[in-house]
Amino acid sequence: MPDSGDIKHFEVVFDCEARSTGKMRNDIAVRMVEPFVETFEMATDEGPFHGGESSAPPPLAYFTAGLAGCIMTQIRAFAKRLRIPLDGVKVAARLHWRGEQVGRDPYVTAPVGFSLDIDLDTTASVDDQLRLIAAAKKGCFIEQTLAQSNTVDHRLKVGDDWIEA
Amino acid sequence: MPDSGDIKHFEVVFDCEARSTGKMRNDIAVRMVEPFVETFEMATDEGPFHGGESSAPPPLAYFTAGLAGCIMTQIRAFAKRLRIPLDGVKVAARLHWRGEQVGRDPYVTAPVGFSLDIDLDTTASVDDQLRLIAAAKKGCFIEQTLAQSNTVDHRLKVGDDWIEA
Repeated sequence: MPDSGDIKHFEVVFDCEARSTGKMRNDIAVRMVEPFVETFEMATDEGPFHGGESSAPPPLAYFTAGLAGCIMTQIRAFAKRLRIPLDGVKVAARLHWRGEQVGRDPYVTAPVGFSLDIDLDTTASVDDQLRLIAAAKKGCFIEQTLAQSNTVDHRLKVGDDWIEA
Repeated sequence: MPDSGDIKHFEVVFDCEARSTGKMRNDIAVRMVEPFVETFEMATDEGPFHGGESSAPPPLAYFTAGLAGCIMTQIRAFAKRLRIPLDGVKVAARLHWRGEQVGRDPYVTAPVGFSLDIDLDTTASVDDQLRLIAAAKKGCFIEQTLAQSNTVDHRLKVGDDWIEA
């Protein structure tokens, strides 16, 4: 929807309803709400070392696929807009976190580093390839999210009410 | 591996090899490298509005499932450690981004807000439930990542070399 002159804004909203099912399995109904409505049945699980049954990939595998897929989608979408020839994209990603545990306390985690190695099948100049990647980084929802510190709001259901958590 | 006294650290590393296949589809071989090796074949696609063929969920659906699944896994794992009775978890998540586009330029995106509504099937006191959620937030790899600003390193393949991108 045009806001002013040439500038358009659009919203992208996803929600999900997730419930624990197996020992560590979660069944997750993901719904794209904006700009279009579409639903996806997904599931996460953990391996036996984490008390699960490996019936689905773990949450961090989803995160990894999301990050790699998002930048690749933007690279391909923006190649068309920037008229940069592109026949294919390969990405190798590496995502590293560290956990710290004191005694038997619940552990505390932190990200260590994320890297993406990008290999474009293209006849474009290196400058155009770099320009394409720069645009894709700015358009990639997940990269833009990782680049800033975000507040995640939590509410806990208590009876029929919700309280801040 | 014990570092000193009672404190242990552990690494969690995922990598992936992803390649564009269909119009907007990406096939992604995700590999957990640490603490155990396991592989997962995953794929993302986009709907027709984005030039894809809807052969797999879009990247943001993976991101949504990853976020919801990660906090749910930690809630269940830490309930055991904290000896808080827990028979089930339901999470409703909402993830909101906004895009801005000038003319036909590639758009620029930004996160707007993330919220998680948590419903625990438990006989525990509200205080214990809040304590459990607080621990899960600190242990959730994805929430801890979202809470800080991260650098994602990019390299572009040029011939047989890699350059910063």
